[in-house]
Amino acid sequence: MMLKDKIIKTLKQAKDASIKLANVSTKQKNRALFGMASALLKNTKYLLSENSKDIAAANKIGISKALVDRLTLTEKRIKEMADSLEQIASLKDPLGKILRQWKRPNSLIIKKVSVPIGVISIIYESRPNVTSDSAGLCVKSGNACVLRGGSEAINSNLAVHRVITKDLGKFGIPESAVTMINVTDRRAMEILLKQPRFIDLVIPRGGEGLIKYVAENSLIPVIKHYKGVCHLYIDKDADLEMALNIMLNAKVQRPGVCNAIEKMLVHKDIAHKFLPLSAGILDDKGVELRGCSETLKILKGIKKATEKDWYEEYLDLILTIKVVKGADEAISHINKYGSRHSDAIVTKNKSVAEKFLKEVDSACVYHNASTRFTDGYQFGMGAEIGISTDKIHARGPMALEELCIYKYIVLGSGQTRS
Amino acid sequence: MMLKDKIIKTLKQAKDASIKLANVSTKQKNRALFGMASALLKNTKYLLSENSKDIAAANKIGISKALVDRLTLTEKRIKEMADSLEQIASLKDPLGKILRQWKRPNSLIIKKVSVPIGVISIIYESRPNVTSDSAGLCVKSGNACVLRGGSEAINSNLAVHRVITKDLGKFGIPESAVTMINVTDRRAMEILLKQPRFIDLVIPRGGEGLIKYVAENSLIPVIKHYKGVCHLYIDKDADLEMALNIMLNAKVQRPGVCNAIEKMLVHKDIAHKFLPLSAGILDDKGVELRGCSETLKILKGIKKATEKDWYEEYLDLILTIKVVKGADEAISHINKYGSRHSDAIVTKNKSVAEKFLKEVDSACVYHNASTRFTDGYQFGMGAEIGISTDKIHARGPMALEELCIYKYIVLGSGQTRS
Repeated sequence: MMLKDKIIKTLKQAKDASIKLANVSTKQKNRALFGMASALLKNTKYLLSENSKDIAAANKIGISKALVDRLTLTEKRIKEMADSLEQIASLKDPLGKILRQWKRPNSLIIKKVSVPIGVISIIYESRPNVTSDSAGLCVKSGNACVLRGGSEAINSNLAVHRVITKDLGKFGIPESAVTMINVTDRRAMEILLKQPRFIDLVIPRGGEGLIKYVAENSLIPVIKHYKGVCHLYIDKDADLEMALNIMLNAKVQRPGVCNAIEKMLVHKDIAHKFLPLSAGILDDKGVELRGCSETLKILKGIKKATEKDWYEEYLDLILTIKVVKGADEAISHINKYGSRHSDAIVTKNKSVAEKFLKEVDSACVYHNASTRFTDGYQFGMGAEIGISTDKIHARGPMALEELCIYKYIVLGSGQTRS
Repeated sequence: MMLKDKIIKTLKQAKDASIKLANVSTKQKNRALFGMASALLKNTKYLLSENSKDIAAANKIGISKALVDRLTLTEKRIKEMADSLEQIASLKDPLGKILRQWKRPNSLIIKKVSVPIGVISIIYESRPNVTSDSAGLCVKSGNACVLRGGSEAINSNLAVHRVITKDLGKFGIPESAVTMINVTDRRAMEILLKQPRFIDLVIPRGGEGLIKYVAENSLIPVIKHYKGVCHLYIDKDADLEMALNIMLNAKVQRPGVCNAIEKMLVHKDIAHKFLPLSAGILDDKGVELRGCSETLKILKGIKKATEKDWYEEYLDLILTIKVVKGADEAISHINKYGSRHSDAIVTKNKSVAEKFLKEVDSACVYHNASTRFTDGYQFGMGAEIGISTDKIHARGPMALEELCIYKYIVLGSGQTRS
């Protein structure tokens, strides 16, 4: 069979499965999630041995240490994957909620009810835990998923998939509800992205290149977790000790993640005091500073920021600093250069804070707190499938509720339109 | 200046305007909407004269009477456009609503607040009233709009746009918040659809060809009002008189609209009784019937339905009928061939109705009522910008609330992540 026919056959099965899965009871879904978790634990040895093939291949072609780390499964990581599935089981079922209900003058009753989206394709790179996390979130939210991982993790992904789907049928979940495309070259992705009849939503998870490719080639709606160019603005009325704490946490605690800050904007009136203090602390932690021309006057010898710097997500121990005239300039700068992810202000001035919170056009806007809290668990939503930087459907952490849509159920007694 | 540079300059202005418009007060927006309405009425003569140029051009190239009708402005229609703007003014402001608010164990307060989407481009054909309706809905929901109408209505659209935007500044609304692209060839559309940095959402309104073109060429998220292949299923336990009434209303009252039915599914146990009754009534109204082989055994001489018929939106006095074994077959048929718009069941059997309402995967599912109610006004939501057949962000009628998204505002007192 041609690759395209094969993929379409798989997608048809996923679509049929999605209709069945939409109506499986919460109890059955939770039992399946516990079953998936225990299957991971029982098959730890097998998973580690399949994973070692990917690691060997990665080392052979000499990919970076960081990437090998992302790829690597350990007993502890497999345990965490199982825990995550059990946690998803413990969350409330997002389906069947009556979001709103009203009666029309002609006595029609309209109910807006939460339902699954349908078939969701997750296209991802490296980390094999995405396979089980995505499957778990989709099962619980009643969505069939079509998983397509990267070639670098193909053995691990197939093994995880095999293990977690083996017993689905026993729990009343159609096996095709969790489908994996085992062809990892671009041809398979190209075919996938052109099937809006079978897939309702694509969620790419990975580097900028992958996300750009998916966004540019998909005929299916895409929700992007693009990049996190997060800002911290230190206002002239900031508590400077708090500002230093938040800066340190947001930059240094885990620099490689999307909710870490990449830029800091500092009010001109406090720049002379605040910048040397912050430079001292950041220098200790090995953070490279870059700055605008005003910053360079205070922090002599640091690198001058280029236009490109303001757009860039370093995911590294680099921080670019700009001195601004006030909140208005900070807001404009963020709305121009930011990625609409997470941005924070530190100030004791309530009205300046309110202005910032209102006018910064980002998924999450913080007052006197670290941007590092943008995360499904930290928000109390449970596991997340990503953090949306798009402006439709969902913004910020996407968890079970965000994997749902609604439909209208209209109850009549023979009404016709006049 | 090159066309691309010109369009990008316009889009930059729209984006800047969107940030200002997001924070304009409800009062100012409502005053602007009343101002737009009265400007339409005051300039009726001018609008009619510009419209007559489009009509003359249309007659010259000999387009269909139906299309000329859609294109034509009359005093009455201009009055309706003004009324619609005033109605939008009377609706509740959808912005700034606290959708949810909670406190985390670390005392962070998280507020989920409704905000505008940003810049919305509406790409449409023919009817000049879309210009003022879209502008009104976008102004009220705080979104800047970039309007791009069809070449057949360019004089009318430009005139409506000129009239409604002339005084926006007086009401504190940036003029670029309502922008029109006056280049109507495909080049302009191609450029528009590739600017995700400036446009947040594209809503195409028009024929299948336009919607397909936009969906296939856009790098910006698109919400599609695709087609309405709506079904009516008559169960064996239906009140047949009610069924006939609903059938007649849903097919005949206004056959050219998306929420009219195109297909009827009839339970085999009542087909012998119901089909002749319905054929008599529909024949009187000039409805052409087509049917499956079982239908043809009962309604001799009607046209045999082809596979293509089941997918087709006629927008005309044609109804294709299938005899089914029961609700399960009806549901599978609808989920396979329907367009996820509006589908109805007529039955007195509650559990069959529940099954149908649950399992039919459409934006609006009806029990004992006509599908013709799928409409912003009929649902009590006010004017609508379209009816979404997509499965993310919004389904069914899209009114003010559906033109919004949310952001998270997080209030802290120095919290950092450990």
